[in-house]
Amino acid sequence: MSNTGGPDHPVVVAPYDSRFLVVPEGLSLVEPPAGSPGATFPGGFLAGGIVAGLKDSGGPDMGVLSVAPEWRSQATSAAVFTSNAFAAAPIVLNRTECDLDHLVAVVMNSANANACTGAAGLAVARAMQTASAEALDVPPRAVAVCSTGIIGVQLDADFMAAGARKAAAAIKPGGGPEFNRSIMTTDRFPKICAYEVETSAGMVRLGVCAKGAGMISPAMATMLCVATTDAVLSSAEMQSLLAAAVAGSFNRVTVDGEMSTNDSVFFLSSGASGVRPRGDDLSRLAGALEAMLLRVALMMVADGEGASKIMRLRVAGAETAPSAIAVARAVANSPLVKTAMHGGDPNWGRIISSAGAAMAGRSLPDASLQLCGVTVVESGSACAVSDADRAVMTEAMKQPEIDITVYLGLGSESTELFFADMGHEYITINAEYHT
Amino acid sequence: MSNTGGPDHPVVVAPYDSRFLVVPEGLSLVEPPAGSPGATFPGGFLAGGIVAGLKDSGGPDMGVLSVAPEWRSQATSAAVFTSNAFAAAPIVLNRTECDLDHLVAVVMNSANANACTGAAGLAVARAMQTASAEALDVPPRAVAVCSTGIIGVQLDADFMAAGARKAAAAIKPGGGPEFNRSIMTTDRFPKICAYEVETSAGMVRLGVCAKGAGMISPAMATMLCVATTDAVLSSAEMQSLLAAAVAGSFNRVTVDGEMSTNDSVFFLSSGASGVRPRGDDLSRLAGALEAMLLRVALMMVADGEGASKIMRLRVAGAETAPSAIAVARAVANSPLVKTAMHGGDPNWGRIISSAGAAMAGRSLPDASLQLCGVTVVESGSACAVSDADRAVMTEAMKQPEIDITVYLGLGSESTELFFADMGHEYITINAEYHT
Repeated sequence: MSNTGGPDHPVVVAPYDSRFLVVPEGLSLVEPPAGSPGATFPGGFLAGGIVAGLKDSGGPDMGVLSVAPEWRSQATSAAVFTSNAFAAAPIVLNRTECDLDHLVAVVMNSANANACTGAAGLAVARAMQTASAEALDVPPRAVAVCSTGIIGVQLDADFMAAGARKAAAAIKPGGGPEFNRSIMTTDRFPKICAYEVETSAGMVRLGVCAKGAGMISPAMATMLCVATTDAVLSSAEMQSLLAAAVAGSFNRVTVDGEMSTNDSVFFLSSGASGVRPRGDDLSRLAGALEAMLLRVALMMVADGEGASKIMRLRVAGAETAPSAIAVARAVANSPLVKTAMHGGDPNWGRIISSAGAAMAGRSLPDASLQLCGVTVVESGSACAVSDADRAVMTEAMKQPEIDITVYLGLGSESTELFFADMGHEYITINAEYHT
Repeated sequence: MSNTGGPDHPVVVAPYDSRFLVVPEGLSLVEPPAGSPGATFPGGFLAGGIVAGLKDSGGPDMGVLSVAPEWRSQATSAAVFTSNAFAAAPIVLNRTECDLDHLVAVVMNSANANACTGAAGLAVARAMQTASAEALDVPPRAVAVCSTGIIGVQLDADFMAAGARKAAAAIKPGGGPEFNRSIMTTDRFPKICAYEVETSAGMVRLGVCAKGAGMISPAMATMLCVATTDAVLSSAEMQSLLAAAVAGSFNRVTVDGEMSTNDSVFFLSSGASGVRPRGDDLSRLAGALEAMLLRVALMMVADGEGASKIMRLRVAGAETAPSAIAVARAVANSPLVKTAMHGGDPNWGRIISSAGAAMAGRSLPDASLQLCGVTVVESGSACAVSDADRAVMTEAMKQPEIDITVYLGLGSESTELFFADMGHEYITINAEYHT
C-alpha cells in the first residue's frame, strides 16, 4: 500500500469494508485485498510492470497483462471505452485495430495519456501494440493499448516500443500488483482485489487491477481497469456481463457520458478453471463481477484528490431516469455541496439549491430530503428537526460514509450515485501541478 | 470599498477597467464607481439600509429602494427571476402577488434566504411587503421582496415586518450605497455603478446596486440586482430592455437555467428625466444597460469566493447554440480547469478533456484551442508551440484576465462565458462555513 505512483500524498485506507457494498451470496473476498494478486488471481494469467523511463520519479510506468500461452486459443474478452469526443490515440487504436472479443493481452503506460496527439500518437500506440505482440508471440490485433497521464505531449514510438517489449518480457504468475503499480498516477493506493465465486459446477475466480483518482468531480475521472476470470465464457457472455457490471459500478460514480479521454475497462477470460457457468451460476458470476467493480469504483472515490468521505446520493421520485441522473449529477458536482460535506456541516440548503437548479422551471411541492437518515425537508419545505435528531445528524456527518436521499415527488424513477467531498488537498494537488 | 457584509476576506479590487468590457459610444461612467450613488444616481429614487438584527455581526441587513413619491404614478418596471425549482418564498410572492410592470419599491434582506420555508415563509415575505408598503404609503402589489442568505431557516413575520418598516423610513436621496451594504453577504466589495447616457433628446441616467459572490461555479451564483433609470419608458420597453441586457450579462456568467433559489434582477424607471428615448436612442440605452449589467456581472465573477482571475471562454464552431453552451459550461464548471487557471499553469489538456466529455460520442477532427491567444491544438491534435509563444502564454497566464477559445469545427454557433478560478480560499470559506 505504499505510494509508488504519484506525488507525496498521505496513504489512506481504501474502503474495503464499505457499508455501501452488498456482497452477493457465495462470494468470497480473497484477503488481504492489497496483498492479493488482483487480476493474476484467476488461473491462466501473467502480468508484470517495468520502468520504461517516462516518470521523473524513476518509478514503474509500463505494464503488460496477458493470458498464459496455453489458454490463449480459447480466451475471450470484452471492453468498454470512454465516449469522450477527444478520445486518446490508444482508444482509437483499440476501437479500430483490435479484435475486442478475443484479446489475450493489454499493454499500458502511465505518465502520458497519448491524447490529442493525432496521427503521430496513433503511430505510437500501434508501435506499443506491435512490439508487445511480437514479444508475446501473438497477433497485434489481440493486444489492446492504454495510456494515462498528461494530455497533448507527443511520445517517441521507438522509446515506447522498447518499453512495451521490456514489459512483455517481465510477465509472470502473480504479477498483478507489479502491473498495477506501473499504471498508477496520482493514486494514493492500489485498486486491486480478487474474489472466489462458488458455482454449482465448481469454483471460479475473479480478479481486478485498476487505477483512478482525481475523480472529485465525477466528470473528471480518469480510470483504467482490467478484470479477469478463469471461467469459460463466450465473447457475447463476456460483453453482456461487463456492460451490466459497469452500469452498476463505474457508471454510478462517473455518471453516463462524462468520461475522460482515456477511460477503459477490460474483461479477459482465460477459461483455465474449465468451469462453464450457466443459468443461476452465470447470474451469480454477474453479481460477483458487479460487486468487484463497485468495490474498485468506491476505492477510486475514496482516493479522490483531497477526498476524506464518500457520499451515497439517492435521487428518487423523478419522472424520468435522465432527470434523476441530471439532479444527482448537479448535486454531486456542486463544489458548494462537496465543501459542506468536507467541513462536516449539515448545510442541506446547498443540496436543495443544486437539485432545484437541475429542475429549473418546475415546482416541487412534494419534495423531501434526508441527510444521514434524518428528514430535513418534507412537502417542499424545511421541517422541524428535534435536538436528538440534529445530534444524530451532526455525529453522522463526521463519519467517512454519508447518505443523502433527495425525493422529487414527481414520479417513480430513481438513481444512485457515489461522490467524494472536496478539501484543501484538492486545490494543492491541482493548482500546484505543473505541465 | 470596506468589507461590511461578510466574513473577513481581503478586499480585492473590482474589475472596473476590465478589458472584457466594451463601452458603447455616448456612455459616460460616473467615477469612482465605489463612491457613486449607484441605483440612486438617476433622478427620482430614494434608498436606505438599516440594521434589522439578522446578522450576528450587527451589520446592516435590510434595505428599501423606492421611486420618490412624486414620480410613482408614472413609474414602470420589469423583473427577471430564478427558474430554480425550489424558488424562495419572496420569488413566489413576487410572481403571484406583485404588479411587476408597475413596481415602485423593493424591500430586501440579507442573512436569510427565506427559501424552502413553505407557507410560513410566504407569510413572512408578505409581512415584509405589507409593512414596507404601509410605511411608503403605496399598495403592497407595487412592492417586490427579496431575501438572500441561509436556506431553510424560518423567520419571524413580526420581526421582519418591523425591519421592513424601519428600512422604508430610512430611504433618502443618494442612499444607494447604504441600501447596497444591507444586501451584501459574502461579498468582498459592493457591486455598484452608474452611467450617464447621451441621447438626442437629452441626458438620461442609469444606476445599479447588486450583491453576488460565491459564484465560483456558475451554477451556484446567488445574486440580487436592482437597476434604475430616469428615462421615460413603457413597461413593455422596460421588459424588453431588461431581457436583452440580462442575456448579454448575467446569463453569460451564470448560464441559462442554472440559478440559485433567490436570484432576482429588477429594473425600475422613475421617468424623472422627462426624456423619452426612441429609435436609435432606445438602442443606445439598451447597449448602456447591457454594458452596466455586464460590468456588475464581471464584478461578481471577480468576487467569486477565492477567485483571483476572470476567464473569458469562447466556444465556437458548434452545431447548435445549446451544444455550445453545454461545452462552455462543462469547461467553466470543471474544478480541474479552475484549479489549473488558479495555479497559472497552461494545462490545456484539462480544457480539452472537459470539452470532449460534453461532446460525448462525437469526434472532433477539426477542433482547435487557443489559450491566451496562442494556438495549442489544431485539427484535433496538439500542435508545436514555439518557445516565444510558450513564453507569451506563460506570462499571460499570470494576468488577472485570461482568454480561452475552443473551436469545435462542427458548425457556426458560438457562445461566450465568463468564469472564475478556484483556490484555497474557496475551500476555506465553504468548508468552514457552518449553519
